[in-house]
Amino acid sequence: MPVNLIAPDANSLLPVPGVELGVAKAHIRKPDRKDMLVLKLAEGARVAGVFTKNRFCAAPVIVCKEHLAKAGGDIRALVVNTGNANAGTGEPGLENARATCVELARLLQLKPEQVLPFSTGVILEPLPMDRLLAGLPQCVADLNGQRWFDAAEAIMTTDIVSKGTSRQITLGGKTVTITGISKGSGMIHPNMATMLGYVATDAAISQQALEVLIDHAVNRSFNCITVDGDTSTNDSFIIMATGKAGNAEISDVASAEFSQLQDAVTEVAIELAQAIVRDGEGATKFMTIQVEAGRDVEECRKVAYAIAHSPLIKTAFFASDPNLGRILAAIGYAGVDDLDVNAMQLYLGDVLVAEHGGRAVSYVEEQGAAVMQEAEITVRVVLNRGQTDATVWTCDFSYDYVRINADYRS
Amino acid sequence: MPVNLIAPDANSLLPVPGVELGVAKAHIRKPDRKDMLVLKLAEGARVAGVFTKNRFCAAPVIVCKEHLAKAGGDIRALVVNTGNANAGTGEPGLENARATCVELARLLQLKPEQVLPFSTGVILEPLPMDRLLAGLPQCVADLNGQRWFDAAEAIMTTDIVSKGTSRQITLGGKTVTITGISKGSGMIHPNMATMLGYVATDAAISQQALEVLIDHAVNRSFNCITVDGDTSTNDSFIIMATGKAGNAEISDVASAEFSQLQDAVTEVAIELAQAIVRDGEGATKFMTIQVEAGRDVEECRKVAYAIAHSPLIKTAFFASDPNLGRILAAIGYAGVDDLDVNAMQLYLGDVLVAEHGGRAVSYVEEQGAAVMQEAEITVRVVLNRGQTDATVWTCDFSYDYVRINADYRS
Repeated sequence: MPVNLIAPDANSLLPVPGVELGVAKAHIRKPDRKDMLVLKLAEGARVAGVFTKNRFCAAPVIVCKEHLAKAGGDIRALVVNTGNANAGTGEPGLENARATCVELARLLQLKPEQVLPFSTGVILEPLPMDRLLAGLPQCVADLNGQRWFDAAEAIMTTDIVSKGTSRQITLGGKTVTITGISKGSGMIHPNMATMLGYVATDAAISQQALEVLIDHAVNRSFNCITVDGDTSTNDSFIIMATGKAGNAEISDVASAEFSQLQDAVTEVAIELAQAIVRDGEGATKFMTIQVEAGRDVEECRKVAYAIAHSPLIKTAFFASDPNLGRILAAIGYAGVDDLDVNAMQLYLGDVLVAEHGGRAVSYVEEQGAAVMQEAEITVRVVLNRGQTDATVWTCDFSYDYVRINADYRS
Repeated sequence: MPVNLIAPDANSLLPVPGVELGVAKAHIRKPDRKDMLVLKLAEGARVAGVFTKNRFCAAPVIVCKEHLAKAGGDIRALVVNTGNANAGTGEPGLENARATCVELARLLQLKPEQVLPFSTGVILEPLPMDRLLAGLPQCVADLNGQRWFDAAEAIMTTDIVSKGTSRQITLGGKTVTITGISKGSGMIHPNMATMLGYVATDAAISQQALEVLIDHAVNRSFNCITVDGDTSTNDSFIIMATGKAGNAEISDVASAEFSQLQDAVTEVAIELAQAIVRDGEGATKFMTIQVEAGRDVEECRKVAYAIAHSPLIKTAFFASDPNLGRILAAIGYAGVDDLDVNAMQLYLGDVLVAEHGGRAVSYVEEQGAAVMQEAEITVRVVLNRGQTDATVWTCDFSYDYVRINADYRS
């Protein structure tokens, strides 16, 4: 029983002027499912990307980075396939990723470096290039501004629901649209790899400002989620800005317009990232781990991730067990060397459960047990040693997590 | 179906001259089970200890460190209770741990600082001091050199089997005995806490040499195991040397005798530590993660722990699935920033499964699948960038892991 899975409905994803999408059933791995997406951008679009830090990064990630550097953000098309991650495929894998870009560039009359390739699916197997290349003209023939919903479905792998959301804001009197889609249901599926996120807007923004914006957005969204602590070979997050909204180009990152756009894009990114956690393998609970009053973001995140990664805590949440000991122990081993455990407070929801190094005097276990029954639970740790906060979102660990990951390849 | 659980039999644990043990059923938490142990050392014994680095360390750990510092290793008794960890209990918890030492010191005519207290069990609850103090004279009345097997049982909590082993070596013509016991079945049970290990020998060794020896032994044994990556509030490892064997006191850490003793104690510690992994919650497989040819121990351990802690890898092992992708991805995110993934080799058992950044050309999946059927599996990663190796032992993640940890408090 997954928690609060929110799939977009077909009409909720707003077209973004300057963006066309086309999908195909290319039979990359399984017959009769949408498994390819081409996204075409109008001339003048700006693109920025953030990629996995895994040393085993996949061929398409390497090619994306090369092309972004070479084209300087002047990217005009994206191509995504599911079914095969083109990871752990060595030099032939790089050649296949490049050949895919060359072919799509030919079809769309672009330079190859104006195309970004993405792959997700089984790893250590060669891309089926014949079927992939045959899918490209189908995607191109399908290109249309209204296809976001199909695009969200085309990039799914083990996802239970598709993931997408839209926002509109007004910038200097012009309506600006932001639409994003994502996929993923663990932080990693090296077999059926990966977290992918794509956000497009018609706002006009300079390349430099867009690169500031993407760091802000990803650090508050995709970099704050974890299902099992693993990161993938193919994780990618892309922001595209077509400039078709007609607002004056935003280049000053200190301007109100920049902040407004940044906030809206970040909201979209957070919703897309949280959707991945809600769809976490076997998840029954959505957990927000909020660490407050730390000295710096690093120590807050250490504590939050120690809690979010602990299998003991995640199984306790699955069991709706307000197991304070496991949370306190995780805080204790988070790696904040001079942490004074007697100075901190721990809350489950609004209930103060621990302080002065032990159970709070006012705490009655029934209160904690009531909080643990909820499908969405906030764990708050107040370190009381600084001014900084950090938040991480995660899900619980259930029998189904083991089942899904143990049975995956059978 | 736990793997290769090896319980000692009653006669396999050899008495150590200078060590007496006594157990009691004190009803600390549950009736009619051995739940207290007193271990008494002859005058002149040397004792060294290593404790949890968790910031939430329990009251007995704090008192152990105080007493070891104050008595300078001249410790004459240990007292262990199960059923209650005396952790997260604040100042009253410290007073209870100290009061326990005072009372045992009175019964044995020692100074309180010559007693080390240990507790394991539920946390955040006060020690039941009336029952605990009533148990002490029972333990004292039971003191006997032959009671190692009962001692191993008395310190069990969620352990399926008791854990103990003995060795004998000859040092300068004298027979030296080493006997150890341990408990634990996850690296942490904050509710029923902890990994405990006790090793005693009748060898004569100086305090300074003993402290060198304990670091060596613990770094190659208890510090190389992980069940779920969590560390506990109460983890403790103690080495005791009574000096009754009659060998010339070992004080030169460069001597052959020191090496011989160190090797034998380390062997005992490894066996005790591995027994904890074999008894890991829900474990069906025992995994040895061996990382070779790294630049330093730190990077080898990072890679080994990334593999050993990955829930995706652990569930794949449970499923006997030779899922190379998950292992390669874990190596990739282990945090060795300049790791060249194309230079390394990965072996499952004796089978070369990956090299040059992808699947080995010679690899046939049936070979990997055959290795994965074994109950004991070695994963070897050859980094090919230095001279250093490191080994970590762990177990798989099964449905039973979730069941045990989700149902634990019910």
